[in-house]
Amino acid sequence: MENFNFYSPTEFVFGKGRAAETGSYVKKYGGSKVLIHFGGGSAVRSGLLDTVRASLEESGIEYRELGGVQPNPRDTLVYKGIELVRAEKIDFILAVGGGSVIDSAKAIAIGVPYDGDFWDLYSGKHPEKALPVATVLTIAAAGSEGSGNSVITKEDGKLKRGTGSDLLRPRFSVMDPALTQSLPAYQTACGATDIMAHVFERYFTNTREVEITDRLCEAVLCTMVREVPRVIADPDNYEARANIMWAGTVAHNNVVGVGREQDWNSHGIEHELSALYDCAHGAGLAVIMPAWMEFVYKHDVMRFCQMATRVFGCAMNFDDPESTALAGIRAFRRFLHDIGMPINFAELGADPKDIPALVEKFGIGDGRTGGFVKLSAADVTEIYKIAAAAVCE
Amino acid sequence: MENFNFYSPTEFVFGKGRAAETGSYVKKYGGSKVLIHFGGGSAVRSGLLDTVRASLEESGIEYRELGGVQPNPRDTLVYKGIELVRAEKIDFILAVGGGSVIDSAKAIAIGVPYDGDFWDLYSGKHPEKALPVATVLTIAAAGSEGSGNSVITKEDGKLKRGTGSDLLRPRFSVMDPALTQSLPAYQTACGATDIMAHVFERYFTNTREVEITDRLCEAVLCTMVREVPRVIADPDNYEARANIMWAGTVAHNNVVGVGREQDWNSHGIEHELSALYDCAHGAGLAVIMPAWMEFVYKHDVMRFCQMATRVFGCAMNFDDPESTALAGIRAFRRFLHDIGMPINFAELGADPKDIPALVEKFGIGDGRTGGFVKLSAADVTEIYKIAAAAVCE
Repeated sequence: MENFNFYSPTEFVFGKGRAAETGSYVKKYGGSKVLIHFGGGSAVRSGLLDTVRASLEESGIEYRELGGVQPNPRDTLVYKGIELVRAEKIDFILAVGGGSVIDSAKAIAIGVPYDGDFWDLYSGKHPEKALPVATVLTIAAAGSEGSGNSVITKEDGKLKRGTGSDLLRPRFSVMDPALTQSLPAYQTACGATDIMAHVFERYFTNTREVEITDRLCEAVLCTMVREVPRVIADPDNYEARANIMWAGTVAHNNVVGVGREQDWNSHGIEHELSALYDCAHGAGLAVIMPAWMEFVYKHDVMRFCQMATRVFGCAMNFDDPESTALAGIRAFRRFLHDIGMPINFAELGADPKDIPALVEKFGIGDGRTGGFVKLSAADVTEIYKIAAAAVCE
Repeated sequence: MENFNFYSPTEFVFGKGRAAETGSYVKKYGGSKVLIHFGGGSAVRSGLLDTVRASLEESGIEYRELGGVQPNPRDTLVYKGIELVRAEKIDFILAVGGGSVIDSAKAIAIGVPYDGDFWDLYSGKHPEKALPVATVLTIAAAGSEGSGNSVITKEDGKLKRGTGSDLLRPRFSVMDPALTQSLPAYQTACGATDIMAHVFERYFTNTREVEITDRLCEAVLCTMVREVPRVIADPDNYEARANIMWAGTVAHNNVVGVGREQDWNSHGIEHELSALYDCAHGAGLAVIMPAWMEFVYKHDVMRFCQMATRVFGCAMNFDDPESTALAGIRAFRRFLHDIGMPINFAELGADPKDIPALVEKFGIGDGRTGGFVKLSAADVTEIYKIAAAAVCE
């Protein structure tokens, strides 16, 4: 196990009806004038925004609003948010929505006190100050409600880049699984895929002797394998929704990933897809991640056998471990297909002709990535090709 | 799943050699004058105390010292600590040791700002203020390095009572698995038993549909089943020590226990043993917990089958589930025996004649406990009797 620091100070306020307590938590964490940041119409239509407003008013907290966050949230709205917060002397950012809204809120929170273009902070410069952020979560997916990460897309040039700092960890996150019951099945499945991908990015590691985090990763994955098909079949299943929602936070606050080298190449490779096609991140991951697995599994067949047997319940073939490894990857792709995810370029709406452009944007040139298997541009090309042509066996 | 709040703001500073960074973390968390609180000779002999002192000096932090914490830490030393901290205007309590030292440090931390006898706060009154506490952990066991709990023994009357509040969560905890390598095998095993008990107290629940926390509980337990025999066989196995140490924190910071009714009767029943005989808490749990399981398993045979199959690798007997449940309990007791734990009163040094007195001290009178199975005084008597006579099958 490698040395590490783990710090997850967010207070999670979990369960049915808890959005009505938002105001009291803003007060507890020192907010006096709040920016409510949200996306499109669903938070309005569902009445959630009204609940949050009423709760803030009840606690005597002033607020302004900025809606319109899109999936793959844009730098353009972040600039607007920074301006508004500065002009109105707002001291607390409240994201009401999913990962995109939260990531946009985080960008505003570090952008406001930064003396320069906030995009610097997504181009390698480390954020040093931030306004407090909190969330009212509406989809189990990105894990952004507990993480110190944020990903923003630059409108001009379709660049998707991330930043990370403990400063970005939300003060509190309201998590009501019932709020996710109205989501379309496709979005639910995209979120679930993202959650599983967050675990796999940590699971595939060259660090030895990390049984505790291996087992914790597998715990989250086994939960998803059981619960996701249940919510796809029955969107109103609160209990399955609740299990998925807590799994989503545990998957990405890093409690299951400490002390081990992590991968994250699939996320990087996917980001180019969602930047170019504006597809859902989870859908892109469903296409990329099994393809990445097929490309790298020979690097550590036993690790893939462990996944196959412990997560997907495959029988271990001791005469031919490789067949078990491949059975696990097939089971994962089949699972994704069964919950309604695309599994190749055609189903995603991507064009194999764009592969050279995708690899170019990925931007490693003659170098290699880090992670489980260090990938060259040729390797990334190959992974896109496998993904383009994948079928469900 | 039940509604819950989860809040674990401690920064964990994990890995080899990290105690040398203690001073910089005290500074980060605002300490300027520190009480170093410790136990007997091992922190001195190992040189750890010198490392901590040097680190504080390097960061320009003043300190005073109070050693002498005993296992099952006493109220008497807490009173001394409170007096010293007040007299010296100390603003930060640093526990260097295991659960007993940390619990004693937490008692001082809430006792100092409390206007009255600190024992009130262990007799039902809720703490409202606390000095900041941090830890340098020397044994994987109590989980006190991440928890908001503290248990203190009243010297006069041998009462063992606990308190809990988020105020007691340490600001940071330095966790170097190498520091645990010098522990005697018996203490290592006691700590491991305590960790497993913390999970079982959460695992046995009447709350339905808690797959994520079930799986997380099982992840910790499976890790212990693999790693503990390895460190008993080879005390210098850093990797196994590291896995156990992180498992110990995860087991008790409640990430694996949220959203579900918990039990904690075995802890209560054990506390009377360690209060009366001054035995190690883990050793008492090794005697009590399997006995408790034998007494309650019929309440939910399938839950015990789940433990038997997922944690101890028992084959499910679909014709006779009860036999699988019992096989799981036998496997647990066998595991405890094999790592050197006592499994009955004789091995613990307890006397069956004391059972009426133990039950009397447990203090439920004509009432019942809460938890998985609500126990009467007669039930608790029966559990002590099973524990007294247990054998390893």
